[in-house]
Amino acid sequence: MAVRALWYRSGVLSVLDQRALPGRTRVLRLRRLAEVATAIRTLTVRGAPTIGVAAAYGMVLGWREGRYSPARAARALGATRPTAHDLFVGIEAVRRVWAAGGDVEAAADAYRREIVDECHRIGIAGAGLFAKTRGVLTHCNAGALATVEWGTALAPLRVAFERGAHLFVWVDETRPLLQGSRLTAWELAREGIPHAVIADNAAGHYLAAGAVDAVIVGADRIARNGDFANKIGTYEKAVVAKANRVPFYVAAPWSTFDPKRATGASIPVEERAPDEVLGFGGVRTSPRASPARNPAFDVTPARYVTAFITPDGVVPPRRVAATLAARAVRDAVPVV
Amino acid sequence: MAVRALWYRSGVLSVLDQRALPGRTRVLRLRRLAEVATAIRTLTVRGAPTIGVAAAYGMVLGWREGRYSPARAARALGATRPTAHDLFVGIEAVRRVWAAGGDVEAAADAYRREIVDECHRIGIAGAGLFAKTRGVLTHCNAGALATVEWGTALAPLRVAFERGAHLFVWVDETRPLLQGSRLTAWELAREGIPHAVIADNAAGHYLAAGAVDAVIVGADRIARNGDFANKIGTYEKAVVAKANRVPFYVAAPWSTFDPKRATGASIPVEERAPDEVLGFGGVRTSPRASPARNPAFDVTPARYVTAFITPDGVVPPRRVAATLAARAVRDAVPVV
Repeated sequence: MAVRALWYRSGVLSVLDQRALPGRTRVLRLRRLAEVATAIRTLTVRGAPTIGVAAAYGMVLGWREGRYSPARAARALGATRPTAHDLFVGIEAVRRVWAAGGDVEAAADAYRREIVDECHRIGIAGAGLFAKTRGVLTHCNAGALATVEWGTALAPLRVAFERGAHLFVWVDETRPLLQGSRLTAWELAREGIPHAVIADNAAGHYLAAGAVDAVIVGADRIARNGDFANKIGTYEKAVVAKANRVPFYVAAPWSTFDPKRATGASIPVEERAPDEVLGFGGVRTSPRASPARNPAFDVTPARYVTAFITPDGVVPPRRVAATLAARAVRDAVPVV
Repeated sequence: MAVRALWYRSGVLSVLDQRALPGRTRVLRLRRLAEVATAIRTLTVRGAPTIGVAAAYGMVLGWREGRYSPARAARALGATRPTAHDLFVGIEAVRRVWAAGGDVEAAADAYRREIVDECHRIGIAGAGLFAKTRGVLTHCNAGALATVEWGTALAPLRVAFERGAHLFVWVDETRPLLQGSRLTAWELAREGIPHAVIADNAAGHYLAAGAVDAVIVGADRIARNGDFANKIGTYEKAVVAKANRVPFYVAAPWSTFDPKRATGASIPVEERAPDEVLGFGGVRTSPRASPARNPAFDVTPARYVTAFITPDGVVPPRRVAATLAARAVRDAVPVV
C-alpha cells in the first residue's frame, strides 16, 4: 500500500501528521489557510515537494475563506519556511490562476499531479544507477512523505528494488528531528526494503569501510551552478562520500530548482528553535545553562554532486544551468 | 570547583554516574571488581583515561576480594570494552605489581596521579594553539569526566580560557549517547566557557561558514602511524575539517598510544546495542520493524590529524612512532 502525505477534497486538506509517525498514524483535516501555514511551520507536513503541494492547497483554502487577496495569501504561506524553493513554486502555481480569475482548485490539483508524476519519473530515470549497488546511504526523509507520493531520493531505490536489485539502505537518523529513523525507516519497513538505522555520526564509518556504494538525498533548493540546500548534515555526507570516491546523487523535481539563484551562497538557511537540539522527545538532555544553535539546512557545493536525478533524466551539475534555460524557453513557447 | 570523575579510599571506589548527568549528580560507591566492570560496560564511568584509572582501582578491589588471580582479574576487566587502549594500560599497571607481591593500592594511586598530571601537562602544552582561536569544535566528551580531572581535548581550552583567550566552543551533541550535550556542555557551563550545543549534523555547516578555527578531540587508541580511534563521528569531522583547511588536533595521555599497533586498521571497534540508536530515554523513536547498527567508534587516518597534543608537547603524526620508540628506550633504562 502506497504512502500518501496529503489529499484534498471539497474544502478539506487531509494531511498525515508527520510529527506523530511512526508511533501513530494520525490524519489532520485542515480547512483554513492559517492551519496549513501552521502545519508547514511545525513540520506536520514537511519535505520540499510536499510543502509546495500543501501550500498550493493552502492557497485554495484561502481563496475559499474569501478574506484574502491572492497576494496576501501568498505572503502568509510564503512566510512559513524560507529554504524550500518548492514552497514558492506551489504558491505561485495557484496565485497566478487565482489572480486571473481561473479555477484555483484545478490549478492546485494539477500542481499536485505534476509533482507526483515528476517523482515517479525520477524513480524511473534513476533506477538504473542502483541496479547493482548494494549499500546505499540516505539522509533525512526524501520519500513519499516528503513528496506526496513516490519520493525523490527513495523513488529510484523503490523502482530498483521492484526490479530485483539487492539493495541495503543505510538510514541516517537525522538529528535533531529524526526524519530518517522515524519516517524513512517507516517507509522502507512498510515495503520490506532491507535497511538499518544509524546515528548520523556513523555514516562516515560505513563509507570508509566500503559498505556504501552510493549516497542519494533530496534537496530543498538547487542553484543554477548545482550548489544545493538540503537537511543539515547533507554537506558532511557529501564531503565524506567524495573523500571515499563514492558517488553522490541528488534527486529532485523541477520545482526544487531555483533558476534565479546563481549559486548556493545566497540560499536562505532557516534556523529553528534551540529546544529541538537541547532535548529529546520533550525531555531536556543538556544543562539548563547551555544554549544551542539549530540550522535546519546546509548548502553543499556543486563539486560534491555526481549528478542530479531529475524527472527528465540524469543531469551533471555543470549542465544544470543549460537544462534550466532550455526548460524556460520550452515553457515560454505556447504548445500549439 | 573542579570536576572529578572518581576517587578511591580504603576499599571503596566512588564514581560520578555519568549516565545521570547533567540532570542529577549521583555518586556510586563500588566495592567489588564486578561492579567496576559493569560501571565501565554501561558507561557509568567512561572516557578512555577514566576507564583506565577505574580499571586500575577495579584491580585493587579484585585483590581485596581475595578470590581472583592477577591474570583473572585483568581478564575480567579487560573484557568490558575493547577499543580504549588506556583500559589495558591501567589494568597492567596494577597487575604487574600485584603479581610481584607489591603494593597494589599504591600502584593504582600512582597510575591515577600520572594520568591527572599528564592531562594537566596536555593543557599547558596545547594552550598556546588556542590563544587566538575564536571558534573551536569538539566532539564527544574529552573533559575532566573522561580523564578523572582536567580532560584531554578540554584541558588546552581550559588553560587558554584562564589565560584570557576569547574562546567559543561548538559542542557536537554526539549521538547516540549525547556525551557532548550532556557532559561537555555541563563542564563548560560550570566554568563559564562560552559554548553552544549543535546537532552532530551541523558541524560541517559551521566549518564551511568559517565559524570554526580549530577542531580538538580526545582519542581511545592511537596507532604508531598516527591513525586513531575515537567516538563515532570523529572521522567525519576530521574529513570535513581538512576540506575546509581547519586544523584538527587530538589530545591524549601516553596511555592512549598503542606502540604495538602499526596502523589503525586493526584497532577493534566496539559495536553497542541497537537500542541506543532506535530510541531515546527509553522511548522508541524508530518503527518496530527497523533494525539499527551502532558502532561506538571510528578510525581516523593520520593524514587528517594536524598534531597530537601530548603531555610532553605537540607531536605531528609522522613523529608519533619515533616519539613512542624514544619513550620505550627511556622507560627501559632504570632511573639511577
